[in-house]
Amino acid sequence: MTGVAIVGASGYASRELIRILLNHPGAKVTVATSRQDEGTRVDALHPSLATRLDLTCEAFNADRLAERARVAFLGLPHTASMAAVPALCERGVRVIDLSADYRLTDPIVYADWYGHQHTDVAGLKTAVYGLPELYRERIPSANLIANPGCYTSTSILALAPLVAENLIERTGVIVDAKSGVSGAGRAPKPNLHFPEANENFSAYNVGKHRHTPEIDQVLTDVGKSTGGPVEVIFTPHLVPMDRGILATIYATPRGPVAEHDLLDLYRTFYARSPFVRVVTGLPATKDSTNTNFFDVTLRIVRGKIVVLACLDNLIKGAAGVAVQNFNLMFGHPETTALL
Amino acid sequence: MTGVAIVGASGYASRELIRILLNHPGAKVTVATSRQDEGTRVDALHPSLATRLDLTCEAFNADRLAERARVAFLGLPHTASMAAVPALCERGVRVIDLSADYRLTDPIVYADWYGHQHTDVAGLKTAVYGLPELYRERIPSANLIANPGCYTSTSILALAPLVAENLIERTGVIVDAKSGVSGAGRAPKPNLHFPEANENFSAYNVGKHRHTPEIDQVLTDVGKSTGGPVEVIFTPHLVPMDRGILATIYATPRGPVAEHDLLDLYRTFYARSPFVRVVTGLPATKDSTNTNFFDVTLRIVRGKIVVLACLDNLIKGAAGVAVQNFNLMFGHPETTALL
Amino acid sequence: MTGVAIVGASGYASRELIRILLNHPGAKVTVATSRQDEGTRVDALHPSLATRLDLTCEAFNADRLAERARVAFLGLPHTASMAAVPALCERGVRVIDLSADYRLTDPIVYADWYGHQHTDVAGLKTAVYGLPELYRERIPSANLIANPGCYTSTSILALAPLVAENLIERTGVIVDAKSGVSGAGRAPKPNLHFPEANENFSAYNVGKHRHTPEIDQVLTDVGKSTGGPVEVIFTPHLVPMDRGILATIYATPRGPVAEHDLLDLYRTFYARSPFVRVVTGLPATKDSTNTNFFDVTLRIVRGKIVVLACLDNLIKGAAGVAVQNFNLMFGHPETTALL
Amino acid sequence: MTGVAIVGASGYASRELIRILLNHPGAKVTVATSRQDEGTRVDALHPSLATRLDLTCEAFNADRLAERARVAFLGLPHTASMAAVPALCERGVRVIDLSADYRLTDPIVYADWYGHQHTDVAGLKTAVYGLPELYRERIPSANLIANPGCYTSTSILALAPLVAENLIERTGVIVDAKSGVSGAGRAPKPNLHFPEANENFSAYNVGKHRHTPEIDQVLTDVGKSTGGPVEVIFTPHLVPMDRGILATIYATPRGPVAEHDLLDLYRTFYARSPFVRVVTGLPATKDSTNTNFFDVTLRIVRGKIVVLACLDNLIKGAAGVAVQNFNLMFGHPETTALL
Repeated sequence: MTGVAIVGASGYASRELIRILLNHPGAKVTVATSRQDEGTRVDALHPSLATRLDLTCEAFNADRLAERARVAFLGLPHTASMAAVPALCERGVRVIDLSADYRLTDPIVYADWYGHQHTDVAGLKTAVYGLPELYRERIPSANLIANPGCYTSTSILALAPLVAENLIERTGVIVDAKSGVSGAGRAPKPNLHFPEANENFSAYNVGKHRHTPEIDQVLTDVGKSTGGPVEVIFTPHLVPMDRGILATIYATPRGPVAEHDLLDLYRTFYARSPFVRVVTGLPATKDSTNTNFFDVTLRIVRGKIVVLACLDNLIKGAAGVAVQNFNLMFGHPETTALL
Repeated sequence: MTGVAIVGASGYASRELIRILLNHPGAKVTVATSRQDEGTRVDALHPSLATRLDLTCEAFNADRLAERARVAFLGLPHTASMAAVPALCERGVRVIDLSADYRLTDPIVYADWYGHQHTDVAGLKTAVYGLPELYRERIPSANLIANPGCYTSTSILALAPLVAENLIERTGVIVDAKSGVSGAGRAPKPNLHFPEANENFSAYNVGKHRHTPEIDQVLTDVGKSTGGPVEVIFTPHLVPMDRGILATIYATPRGPVAEHDLLDLYRTFYARSPFVRVVTGLPATKDSTNTNFFDVTLRIVRGKIVVLACLDNLIKGAAGVAVQNFNLMFGHPETTALL
Repeated sequence: MTGVAIVGASGYASRELIRILLNHPGAKVTVATSRQDEGTRVDALHPSLATRLDLTCEAFNADRLAERARVAFLGLPHTASMAAVPALCERGVRVIDLSADYRLTDPIVYADWYGHQHTDVAGLKTAVYGLPELYRERIPSANLIANPGCYTSTSILALAPLVAENLIERTGVIVDAKSGVSGAGRAPKPNLHFPEANENFSAYNVGKHRHTPEIDQVLTDVGKSTGGPVEVIFTPHLVPMDRGILATIYATPRGPVAEHDLLDLYRTFYARSPFVRVVTGLPATKDSTNTNFFDVTLRIVRGKIVVLACLDNLIKGAAGVAVQNFNLMFGHPETTALL
Repeated sequence: MTGVAIVGASGYASRELIRILLNHPGAKVTVATSRQDEGTRVDALHPSLATRLDLTCEAFNADRLAERARVAFLGLPHTASMAAVPALCERGVRVIDLSADYRLTDPIVYADWYGHQHTDVAGLKTAVYGLPELYRERIPSANLIANPGCYTSTSILALAPLVAENLIERTGVIVDAKSGVSGAGRAPKPNLHFPEANENFSAYNVGKHRHTPEIDQVLTDVGKSTGGPVEVIFTPHLVPMDRGILATIYATPRGPVAEHDLLDLYRTFYARSPFVRVVTGLPATKDSTNTNFFDVTLRIVRGKIVVLACLDNLIKGAAGVAVQNFNLMFGHPETTALL
């Protein structure tokens, strides 16, 4: 039984993490921290967890945490994560960081997109990008996992087979993504106020969303043996629903392609990945909501490849993949507590 | 053409007011004030109004307002209204106040429920309760209208015929009310954050909602010739939708009653009221949404009278009835700009 | 490992049942039947189950079913259940019937409310009402379980302690209930068409809903040692959300009562019931959605007891309590697969 | 006062038409027809219209209609429209057809996409495409208007300035469109059942939607003086909301372009169009819901032009533009009853 700390326990992803870990035979949540909720019971923050666990939030203290936990899931805002990670690593606590702080390998790119200097460049070098479908081999031995973003996982898993096989042009790839509102976090904001977000649909951060360089970086890595950098045009939209992301992706094939062959390619590429479902119908977000599945299909329309992919942003896009990483790191079957 | 000021222009009711008044042949919005949005165009606050009016928010100033407007609609929070009303009245500006400040006739009751002393008791004595269906005769000459609350209008109009005819017991009347989220205003709050309010249903302020004494007071007045005070048990609930209130009301008849007779009573009682629709089917909020209608029916179930009534909280429950009052005050047909 | 049949596999409750049973260490779904979907894979009916089970719907055949399953969950419409149950019981298959066919003990009451003669009066006599919180002792040996209705469970569990202790008047109990749309089943209907049900709120079947006699019957049984029949005034409403029921209940106390004492009574009454959470805040449906919990609290308002209770209509109100019954029948801990 | 017939009165667009026309000083709805609702009052079909009009649905009869109406709005399914139009035109009734039957100028293309032979090729030749922003001059004298599709208007208005000025490549234009559910009509279907469509997001008819050839045809016409055919890749999606379409469009510029210049081009192009709002912020569907406005902006992202545009599918996308056409045909200001 591994002692687990949830650092930054008040957010939605942390609530999902706790819920999943309560059913994990090899994990026990022993620490929950929250700066603004010190002394508050976890089930007061998350009433859905009432009667499920007897735990009170404390302030973050690396020493006390290390006494009770061998792994920490970090549900902190960016910059807060990189302030906490070094102390945890030094004390031998393995870290699964759900923030963006360790996802971009180049600190200059990080500074460009996040507006802050990176303060733990050493950590950045050791971090492993926690997308098991692509980096399953590197995760078991990692001490610091950069858990991927939700839009990012959707986009990368949807495009990886095409990029790996060098079947598409690498620039001008259009990722038109749509997300439920929980992806924006738990803090109230004017545009997320119910009467504003409900019965409404709009794009936001067009051309400026911070998941863009993350998608570029990982897909470029996926295709590094056969070509140059991948550059996506990424447009996120807000859907009036709680959960789920669907990405509609338009790519230009480098040569003749057939739907059937491409679907076979996807099946082969993900043959060892229990949470990827290559479907033939058009995926709907609701079918993967509350699961750790990633559903994907594709069509060829007037010469473009149209990939349609979805997942639950809080689970496969955050807490679920984090537990998938935990499973790989601590020797559990990859699907433990996730089916 | 009457010059109209919208004081506190940033809220939802004010947006509806402006939208309605743009189609009013006898009104022109000449002033919009907003403390926190001074210098901001009204259509920047409310993008739905783009190209509809060329007006910029200013700070509230009674002198400048009085130069351009003969009537002011106040979309202010309680206590802010009673701070502004005396200055307006002194300058001959007639006021339609959408806050609760002038609704309760007894300043002690006000202080009890709102936690503040009333600072304009003189104004309180002159204010007319702006529910045209009950006080149509008093409104034309009023200089200060207390525009009713949304739950209040629903509950009062639903019960008035039964109370006026002294057909029901006056205590133990149960008003189980359900409202869309816009009723809670435009300011973001944790429980109104989209992922919290969406796909959720709950009661709030059980036994403590401030519309309770307002319902009691007006219904008591309606029935004053035949009996004592009315006392309702009022339970508000939040519905995951933008607009609309439905009240399900349970009353105990004082003697034998028949559905058909009671429906006839309602039709007679509201014969002169163009916005009351006595329907035979069960009313659904959506049929009165975006209108100034109040829909009502009733059933007798195991000896109780069950009244079901609904309206749009932002229109018949706020901005629409305010324009209805404006029409009566300025000699327009009651339905002008409201059909 | 107990072989399980899902009879009538296409509905929402059946989908939830299958999903829950996939995580049950002592159950294996070996048969799925559906009249209109014979030959269709279960995961084609329910795409959320893709990759989870390899099973194809067949026509209902009691002999073939009995070869592979020791228990059958019936997700059939009323009248269809009582047509299938005798054949299953004769073959030694234990039945958990999610329809209404075996809930009302008096076939005359059944005929009155459902408009059909009961065709299995013998079965009716042996059926056990499957609400473990009240009938936990009788369930283990039952061969035929009448799984309670969703509104029914909410109402009964909310009122049982008050009735058992004879603390309230037994007539005039008002149950104002609100349900998400999945409670109405999977068959498309005009009033459940998205643009009709969305952003809408209304009552339906006022005074006529078929859960009324079921609530009366069970609560009367709960209070039989201390008084006469319970009679509720039941008003169901449709909430624009997928799941969840909240009941707001108004009861008249027979003598002086205090909130604190009543909450203690509830805690004691349900001390052995792991899925009942007596909470102090006002329960919101979202906190029990996707769980088997029933959340309840109460307030005293102007002399009435106001009980507020909620549950997930598809889980604690249908599939979850069905598995709770299965657990009791087959010797598993009551919470297996349900936390 | 022009007598108006609503043929096919039961749908959503017809309800909106009636609602708008009730406020039109120059129109009176004198006839409503509905095959399946003969003898039913219009306000029984559409309870929101209660007390607004006293009209009963009749069967369609061209003679009787022509006696009372000079113009007919057709809210019929495709193929039903072309069966009714010739009889109306022969009797001198001008027609505004909201179906797709007269939109595609080439009957072979029609047969390809709709699976039926066109039976009124003569009518097809006289029909005018009713998009006033592009064909304002031809509408006043038209006797048969093909009212555009909702996705179509959104896409065409969003791209017309770029195509007219020959600024973009004409193939590979990606139109990723998202629509509220009312766009799919009033007939219940399994995928539009509330618990299926709610909290769900998916694409449908990828590469196969019938609005594709309509978009191609009109944009090709818009750009005919400077280049060849336009070919869009059109992907519609279903958004869990009642109303509103947002299209996110990706086009490849033929040469260097600047955002500011392009926005100016749009302002100039639509200078005479009172319902087009060229905005600088990102448009949200809610700001044009319940209005006849079309909101549009654009961004340049990594060398692509990204156009974002929205409108209310039932108003600017159907009933509103139909009244705009009516206004032009009958000599009213274009905005009458539409602001």
